[in-house]
Amino acid sequence: MTNTPTTYRTGVWLVGARGSVATTAIMGAAGVRDRITPTTGCVTESPDFAAATLPAFGDLVFGGHDIAETSLPKRAEQLAHAGVVPRQLPDLVHTDLTAADAEIRPGTPAIEADRSQRETAAILTEDLRSFRERHDLARVVVINVSSTEPRPEPRDEHAELAALERALDNTTLRGQSVLPPSSLYAYAALQAGCSYVDFTPSLGARLPALDELARKQRLPYAGSDGKTGETLVKSALLPMFASRRLDVLAWSGTNLLGGGDGENLADPTTVTSKTTSKQRAIGESLGYPVDGNVHIDYVPELGEWKTAWDHILFEGFLGARMSLQFTWQGCDSSLAAPLILDLARLLARAHETGHAGPLEKLAFFFKDPLGVDEHRLIPQYEMLRDFAGSLGRTQ
Amino acid sequence: MTNTPTTYRTGVWLVGARGSVATTAIMGAAGVRDRITPTTGCVTESPDFAAATLPAFGDLVFGGHDIAETSLPKRAEQLAHAGVVPRQLPDLVHTDLTAADAEIRPGTPAIEADRSQRETAAILTEDLRSFRERHDLARVVVINVSSTEPRPEPRDEHAELAALERALDNTTLRGQSVLPPSSLYAYAALQAGCSYVDFTPSLGARLPALDELARKQRLPYAGSDGKTGETLVKSALLPMFASRRLDVLAWSGTNLLGGGDGENLADPTTVTSKTTSKQRAIGESLGYPVDGNVHIDYVPELGEWKTAWDHILFEGFLGARMSLQFTWQGCDSSLAAPLILDLARLLARAHETGHAGPLEKLAFFFKDPLGVDEHRLIPQYEMLRDFAGSLGRTQ
Amino acid sequence: MTNTPTTYRTGVWLVGARGSVATTAIMGAAGVRDRITPTTGCVTESPDFAAATLPAFGDLVFGGHDIAETSLPKRAEQLAHAGVVPRQLPDLVHTDLTAADAEIRPGTPAIEADRSQRETAAILTEDLRSFRERHDLARVVVINVSSTEPRPEPRDEHAELAALERALDNTTLRGQSVLPPSSLYAYAALQAGCSYVDFTPSLGARLPALDELARKQRLPYAGSDGKTGETLVKSALLPMFASRRLDVLAWSGTNLLGGGDGENLADPTTVTSKTTSKQRAIGESLGYPVDGNVHIDYVPELGEWKTAWDHILFEGFLGARMSLQFTWQGCDSSLAAPLILDLARLLARAHETGHAGPLEKLAFFFKDPLGVDEHRLIPQYEMLRDFAGSLGRTQ
Amino acid sequence: MTNTPTTYRTGVWLVGARGSVATTAIMGAAGVRDRITPTTGCVTESPDFAAATLPAFGDLVFGGHDIAETSLPKRAEQLAHAGVVPRQLPDLVHTDLTAADAEIRPGTPAIEADRSQRETAAILTEDLRSFRERHDLARVVVINVSSTEPRPEPRDEHAELAALERALDNTTLRGQSVLPPSSLYAYAALQAGCSYVDFTPSLGARLPALDELARKQRLPYAGSDGKTGETLVKSALLPMFASRRLDVLAWSGTNLLGGGDGENLADPTTVTSKTTSKQRAIGESLGYPVDGNVHIDYVPELGEWKTAWDHILFEGFLGARMSLQFTWQGCDSSLAAPLILDLARLLARAHETGHAGPLEKLAFFFKDPLGVDEHRLIPQYEMLRDFAGSLGRTQ
Ligand SMILES: NC(=O)c1ccc[n+]([C@@H]2O[C@H](COP(=O)([O-])OP(=O)(O)OC[C@H]3O[C@@H](n4cnc5c(N)ncnc54)[C@H](O)[C@@H]3O)[C@@H](O)[C@H]2O)c1
Ligand SMILES: NC(=O)c1ccc[n+]([C@@H]2O[C@H](COP(=O)([O-])OP(=O)(O)OC[C@H]3O[C@@H](n4cnc5c(N)ncnc54)[C@H](O)[C@@H]3O)[C@@H](O)[C@H]2O)c1
Ligand SMILES: NC(=O)c1ccc[n+]([C@@H]2O[C@H](COP(=O)([O-])OP(=O)(O)OC[C@H]3O[C@@H](n4cnc5c(N)ncnc54)[C@H](O)[C@@H]3O)[C@@H](O)[C@H]2O)c1
Ligand SMILES: NC(=O)c1ccc[n+]([C@@H]2O[C@H](COP(=O)([O-])OP(=O)(O)OC[C@H]3O[C@@H](n4cnc5c(N)ncnc54)[C@H](O)[C@@H]3O)[C@@H](O)[C@H]2O)c1
Ligand code: NA
Ligand code: NA
Repeated sequence: MTNTPTTYRTGVWLVGARGSVATTAIMGAAGVRDRITPTTGCVTESPDFAAATLPAFGDLVFGGHDIAETSLPKRAEQLAHAGVVPRQLPDLVHTDLTAADAEIRPGTPAIEADRSQRETAAILTEDLRSFRERHDLARVVVINVSSTEPRPEPRDEHAELAALERALDNTTLRGQSVLPPSSLYAYAALQAGCSYVDFTPSLGARLPALDELARKQRLPYAGSDGKTGETLVKSALLPMFASRRLDVLAWSGTNLLGGGDGENLADPTTVTSKTTSKQRAIGESLGYPVDGNVHIDYVPELGEWKTAWDHILFEGFLGARMSLQFTWQGCDSSLAAPLILDLARLLARAHETGHAGPLEKLAFFFKDPLGVDEHRLIPQYEMLRDFAGSLGRTQ
Repeated sequence: MTNTPTTYRTGVWLVGARGSVATTAIMGAAGVRDRITPTTGCVTESPDFAAATLPAFGDLVFGGHDIAETSLPKRAEQLAHAGVVPRQLPDLVHTDLTAADAEIRPGTPAIEADRSQRETAAILTEDLRSFRERHDLARVVVINVSSTEPRPEPRDEHAELAALERALDNTTLRGQSVLPPSSLYAYAALQAGCSYVDFTPSLGARLPALDELARKQRLPYAGSDGKTGETLVKSALLPMFASRRLDVLAWSGTNLLGGGDGENLADPTTVTSKTTSKQRAIGESLGYPVDGNVHIDYVPELGEWKTAWDHILFEGFLGARMSLQFTWQGCDSSLAAPLILDLARLLARAHETGHAGPLEKLAFFFKDPLGVDEHRLIPQYEMLRDFAGSLGRTQ
Repeated sequence: MTNTPTTYRTGVWLVGARGSVATTAIMGAAGVRDRITPTTGCVTESPDFAAATLPAFGDLVFGGHDIAETSLPKRAEQLAHAGVVPRQLPDLVHTDLTAADAEIRPGTPAIEADRSQRETAAILTEDLRSFRERHDLARVVVINVSSTEPRPEPRDEHAELAALERALDNTTLRGQSVLPPSSLYAYAALQAGCSYVDFTPSLGARLPALDELARKQRLPYAGSDGKTGETLVKSALLPMFASRRLDVLAWSGTNLLGGGDGENLADPTTVTSKTTSKQRAIGESLGYPVDGNVHIDYVPELGEWKTAWDHILFEGFLGARMSLQFTWQGCDSSLAAPLILDLARLLARAHETGHAGPLEKLAFFFKDPLGVDEHRLIPQYEMLRDFAGSLGRTQ
Repeated sequence: MTNTPTTYRTGVWLVGARGSVATTAIMGAAGVRDRITPTTGCVTESPDFAAATLPAFGDLVFGGHDIAETSLPKRAEQLAHAGVVPRQLPDLVHTDLTAADAEIRPGTPAIEADRSQRETAAILTEDLRSFRERHDLARVVVINVSSTEPRPEPRDEHAELAALERALDNTTLRGQSVLPPSSLYAYAALQAGCSYVDFTPSLGARLPALDELARKQRLPYAGSDGKTGETLVKSALLPMFASRRLDVLAWSGTNLLGGGDGENLADPTTVTSKTTSKQRAIGESLGYPVDGNVHIDYVPELGEWKTAWDHILFEGFLGARMSLQFTWQGCDSSLAAPLILDLARLLARAHETGHAGPLEKLAFFFKDPLGVDEHRLIPQYEMLRDFAGSLGRTQ
C-alpha cells in the first residue's frame, strides 16, 4: 500500500459507517490511493494545501459504528447501481470494503438497549481504543455521518463536565438518556483520545460539558452539518447581495430529497433541526432578517439525488424589484464523501500539531459552523487555506 | 444643498449622458442627496467605506456628451413609465435633470462628421475644461456609459503616445479614424486633466499610448464593462466550484435583453466584444478551459429588463454528474446606476490622493477588470475595501 | 354607451366586490366597452364565441357585497400603483368605479353579527332583487370572488333542501352557522332568481340542498376555483404526459404568493382547501396516484404577483429518468378578471336559454370543476366552445 | 417467439440502424415482447388503440441501412453505459441485436461513391425486397432515423415523377445528386413497395414527385421530425396561451444537446433545417408571428441527454406582463424509440388497410407534420386515436 511507518497511519472512524456518505468515502479513498479515480471534489488536494503535510489517502484506515446490517460491499453495489459511483468501482476496491466492513461495530441505540448510557459509552470508547491499537494507528478521527437525530431538550447536566459525569453515573437504569446518540459518540471519542467531527446537524460535541472534555483531553473537534447543496450555493450568493448592498426581500427554498436521508428529514421533528441551521445563515450573512420558508420534501423516486429550487426576491437602487432563481441538482453522497476525507486529514494533522477545542477555521465545510460569524464561502476558504498553511511541518 | 466649499465639488461627466444608466444615476444622486430614496445598491455607502472621505452625493455635479436629442427630463419620464424608477421621482428631481441636461454637449461622431480626430479631441477637451471652470469644480471624472462600439482593428499607433500624437496630427482629412470614439473620449479626458472610467466593453483607455498619457498627467483610470447581471452571479459562483474542486464541464448561457442596449448588442459585430469579456472570466477563474456558448438575444418587449439563464454542468467525486441552473431577472439600469456613483466618488478621491494609471483595485465593479487576475467577487470586494481604507484623510 | 334596451342589460353581482379580482374586472369591462384597452385574456372574445349572442361588455352593470371599506376608486389606485392595470386607467373609468361602488352592500358576516342566518339570507336576497329592479336588469349573475373560507364541517342539513330550510328556520339565535358564508350567498342568489358562480375554492353551491334549489328555481350555477396559475399550466401539461404514456413519478410544487389572497391562504386551515383541489387534478388526469407536495407560501413583498415552481419527475421507455421544471410568474388579478367577465356573460346567456343546475361544460375555467371528469385543458376548451355554439340565438 | 403466421410478420427497416434511436428501439421491442420491460412511452399501447389490430411487438423484424461500422451489440453496450437503457438489457436481448445487425446493409452515400443515383437506388430497393422475401414478411415499413442532412437546393425535377425518373436516368456520372440521401431512401422504399416514415427533419418523401410515386404504388408515408423534447412541451403549452387569449410577446429557447445528434446539429447549415421546423409551430398555433430565437448548442459532456430552457413572455388583460419558463431534461433516444415502434405498427396497418399518400392523422408524432394545420398536441392525439379506431379489423 504505502511505505508510511505504521505509527503514522490514521484511523477514520465513521459513525454511520454503512450509510451512503460513509460507503462513498471509503471507496473513494481506496480509488484515489490506487490512482483509479481523480481527486475531484477533495479540497485538500488543492496546491493551497500542499505544505500542510496531511496524511496521505493511503494512510487512512477505516472502521466505524452502525446499526444497519447491510454490508459495505452490498451498499457499494447499490450506490454503483444508482449511478453515484462508477459501475466497476465496488469490484476494484472490494478488499478495502471488506476490510472496513470487518471493523464496523454495533452502534448505539443498539447497544444502549439493555445498558445504561455510562455502560454504552464505555463500550464505544473501548471500540475506538482497540481499533487504534489493533492497527497501530498514530491517531483516530471520529466523524459522525449517521442519520440526523431529533434535537433533544436542553438539560442542566450539559452545562459542565462534572455535572455530565455525575448524571452518567446516576443513569443506572436502562433507557434513561442524558445525551442523544451523537453526543454519546462524541463523549466516547473524546474519552478515547480521538478528535471528533459532526457532519450532521445533530448535537454532537456542541455542549459546554463536551467542550470542557475536549480541552482537557487536548483534542480538537469540528462541525456541524456538512455544507453540500442549497446552503453551499447560498453561502456563495449571499455575499454577492451583501457586498453590492442589494436588499434581499425574501429567500424561499424547496428541497426535494430522495434516499435514506430524505426519508429521515421528512419527519417533521427532524426537519426543524435541519431548516433552522439553513435559515440561520441568511440572517447572519446579511445583518437583517429575511422573509421566506425552506421546505424539505421526501421524493423517494429521486433516489440518491436531490433537487433544490431557491427564489430570491431583491430590491436595487430606487426600488426596482428583481429576482434570482436557481435549481441545484446534486448527488449528496458524491458531494459529501470527499469532504469527509478532507476533514479526516485536517483533524488528524490538527490533533498532531496540538490544536484543542473547536476548530472554527473549518467553517468552510459546514452549514452551521462552530464558533464563527463568517458565513461567506470564499472568506471561509481563505481562512481554511491559511489555517492549513500553519499546519505544515516546517513552519 | 450642502455646505461644501465650491472648490470641493466634483464633476461627473457622462459619455452617453442621455442613456438609461446615466439618467438613472443622475436622478439617484439627487434622490439620495435629498433623502427621498435610500442608498440601496451603492457599494460606497457601506460602513466599510466610511473612512474613505469620499465626496458626498450632494457634491456631485453632472454633465456629459451624447448624440441623442431626447432631453433628460423626457428620458426620466420614460424610465418611470417602464418601472425602473418610482413614478414621482422625475418630478421631484426635475431641477437637477434640467440642470444636467443643460450641461450636455454633442458627442463624437456627431462633431467628428466634418472635422479631423485632432480637431474633435480639442473640442471634447475644451468641453471638459469649461465645465470644470464654469462650476468651479475640484476635479472631474469622465465615465463612459455610451453605447458599446464594435471592437476596432489593432493599430501600430496605439502602442505609444508619441506615435498616437503623430497619427492624430496627420489625420487632417475627415473621417479618418485613428481611435474609436471611446478612446477619443479617453484621450480628451486625460488631456483635460480628468480621470476616466470605462463602464462599457469598448476599448476606452486600454491602449499603451493612453496608459502613458494617464501616467504623464498623473491621472487614474479604471474599467472595463460594468459587472451587473449574469457575470456578477458568475463571479460569485465560479469560486464556489473552484474552491470545492468541482469540475465544471460546461457553462452555457442565454441572455434576453430589451432596451437600447439589447438592440445594439444584437448586432453580431458588437456581440463579439461583449461575449468575449464574459467568457474570459470563466477560464481564468477555474484555470482550465470550459465548454459552452453565451447567447445574447434582443427581445424588445422586455423593455428595460433582462433575463439570463445559465446552465452549469459539473462533475464531483467519483464522476457523478450534477448541474446548477440559475435565472436572473434584473433591471440593468437600476443595477448599474449606483455603481456609476460609486466609481465617480472613488475616482475623484483616488485622483485627489495622487493615484495614477490603472486602478486594478476596482476589479469588483467590472466584467473585464484592468490589470488584475482576481476574478472572484468577494476577494475583489476585500481588495476594494482595503483600497478605500487607504484613501482616508487621516491615514 | 350602448343602444341595448334596458331590459337586456345584465347585472354582475360580485361577492368580494372590493377585492383585487373584482376591481380589475370592473375596470376592465369599462375599458373594453370604451375601446381603450384590448380584450386580451377574454376567452369569450374569440371568434369561436361569436355566434353565442352573449351580452356585450357595455351591457354589464356591476354591484356586490363586501365587508371592506376601501372604496373601488381607491382600490383601483392601489392596483395601478402595483402595476396590475395601466397607470391612467382608474382615472379614465372613474365614473364606472364610482357607480359600482355605490352598489356595494355590506356582506355577511358583517350583517350576520346580530342576526340569524335566515334573517341574513333575507337581506342578501333583498339586496339582489332591489339591484335588479333599480337597474331594470334582464337578469343578474352572482359571482363569488371573496376571500377563500375555511372548509366547514359536513352537516346533515346540507343533504336536502327541506332539511336546510328547516335548519335555517331554527337558527333564531345569533352566531349559529348552518351554512358557511359562500353557501349563504349562493342560497340568497338562488332565492332571488340569480345564477351563481364560485370562483373561489369555498363550498358555495356545492351542496345537494342547493343543487335542489337551483333546479327548482331553474337556475344554472358553476364553479369552483378559478384556474389561473400553476393549475392552468398543469392542466395543459398533464395530458402531454398521459397521451405519450410517460410515467409521472412525482409532481412537486411551491407557490409564492403576495397580496391579500396569499396572506389568507398561508393560514394552515385554508391552505388545505386550496391544495386539495390542486392535487386532485393530477391523480384524476393520469389515472394513478402521483407522489409530491404542493406548498403555498405567503411572501408579502411579491405584492399582487405570484411565482410558482413545479418539478415533475417522470420515466420513459426502458426506465430513463427525466424531468420537467417550470416557473410561472403571473399576476393573478389580471388572469382572473377577464374570466369573471367571461363567466358573467356565459351564465347570463345560459340562464336566458333555460339551462338549470351545474354547468359542467364550463370546466375550462375551474381548478375543481363541477360534475365532470375531464381535466385536460384543450378538451375542456372544445367542450366550452361547443356549448357556446349551442347558446346562439339562431341555432 | 409468437404464433403469428410468418406472412403476418412486419419488417421495420431503419435508415440509420446503428444510431441511438434505432438501437434503443430494437432493444425495446425485444424487451417488451419478452415482458422484461414495460411499455412506458409507447402510445399505441394505450387502451385507445386496442381495437386497431396493430402488429404485435413480437411480429416486428428489424433490418436497415447505415454507414457506421459499430455493431448493434456494441452500440447497445454504450447506451447501457450512458444510462439510456438498463445495465443488463443488452445481454438479455443479445440474440435480437445480433440478428438485426446481420440485416444491416451499407447505406448511401457509401454505395453512391462510385455509382450513379439510379444505380444506388436499385441497390437500396433490392436490399428491401430481399429482406422482405428472406423473412417472408407481410410488408415492410422504412423509417428514417439517420443523421439530419443539410436542406438541399430546390430542383425542377422534384416537381413531378416523370421528370424525376428522367433526371435519375441521366445522372450516369458519379457524384451527381438529384436527390438528397433521405429522398433517395424514400424513392427506393416506395419502389420496393414499402411505406416510409421520416423521423428526421430531412427532405425524405416531401416532394411532389415522390408523393405521386406513393399514390401510384398505393403506399402511405408520414413525417417529419419526431416531436420529443422542447417542441413536445411547446405543442402542449401553446394551445393554453391561445385558448386563454393570452398574448405571447416572445418565445425564446436554448437547447443544449450532447450525443452524435448534437454534434451534427451544431453545424450551422444543418441547424437551419432544425430550428425552422421548431419556429414554424409557434406562429401557426397562435395565428400571429412571435418574436424570439431558438439556439441549439452542442455540449458533448451531456452525452445522450439534453437540456432545453424556454422563456415565454406574455401579456394578459389590461397589459400585465407575465412569464413562463421551463427546463426540460430528457433523454432523446428513450423518448424517440417507442414512437418508432408506434409508427412502424401504425404504418404497417395503414398500408394493410389500403391507405395511400401522406398520413396527416399522425401529426401527433411530428414537429413538422405533413399536410395538416393542427399543431395542438391534444387535438392531434384525438385525431390519431380516431384514425387508429378506423384501422380495426371489424369496422
Ligand atoms: N450527504 C450530504 O451531502 C450531507 C450533507 C450534510 C449532512 N449530511 C448528513 O450526513 C448523514 C449521513 O447521510 P447519508 O446520506 O449517508 O445517510 P444514510 O441514511 O445513507 O446513512 C446513515 C447511516 O447511519 C446509520 N445510523 C443511523 N442511526 C445510527 C446510530 N444511532 N448509530 C450509528 N449509525 C446509525 C444508518 O444505519 C445508516 O447506515 C445524515 O445525517 C445527513 O443529514 C449529509
Ligand atoms: N446597464 C448595465 O448593467 C450595464 C452593464 C455593463 C455595461 N453597460 C454598458 O453601458 C452602456 C450604456 O447602457 P444604457 O443601458 O444606458 O444604454 P442606452 O442605449 O440607454 O444609452 C447609451 C447612450 O449613449 C449615447 N451614445 C451612443 N453613441 C454615442 C457616442 N458616440 N457619443 C456619446 N454618446 C453616445 C446614446 O445616444 C445613448 O443616449 C452600454 O454600452 C452598455 O453596454 C451597461
Ligand atoms: N386571482 C386569481 O387568479 C384567483 C384564482 C382562483 C381563485 N381566486 C380566489 O378569488 C378570491 C378573490 O381573490 P382576490 O385576489 O380578489 O382577493 P382579495 O383579498 O383582494 O379580495 C377579496 C375580497 O373579499 C372580501 N371579503 C372577504 N370576506 C367576505 C365576505 N364574507 N363577504 C363579502 N366579501 C368578503 C374582502 O373584503 C376583499 O375585498 C380569493 O378567494 C381567491 O382565492 C382567485
Ligand atoms: N431522438 C430524438 O428525440 C429525435 C427527435 C427528432 C428527430 N430525431 C432525428 O433522428 C435521427 C437519429 O437520431 P440519433 O440520436 O439516433 O442519431 P445518431 O447519430 O445516434 O444516429 C444516426 C445514425 O445514422 C447513420 N447515418 C448517417 N448518415 C447516414 C446515411 N446517409 N445513411 C444511413 N445511415 C446514416 C449514422 O451512422 C448513425 O448510426 C437524427 O436525424 C435526429 O435529428 C431524433
Ligand atoms: Na419577473
Ligand atoms: Na438532471
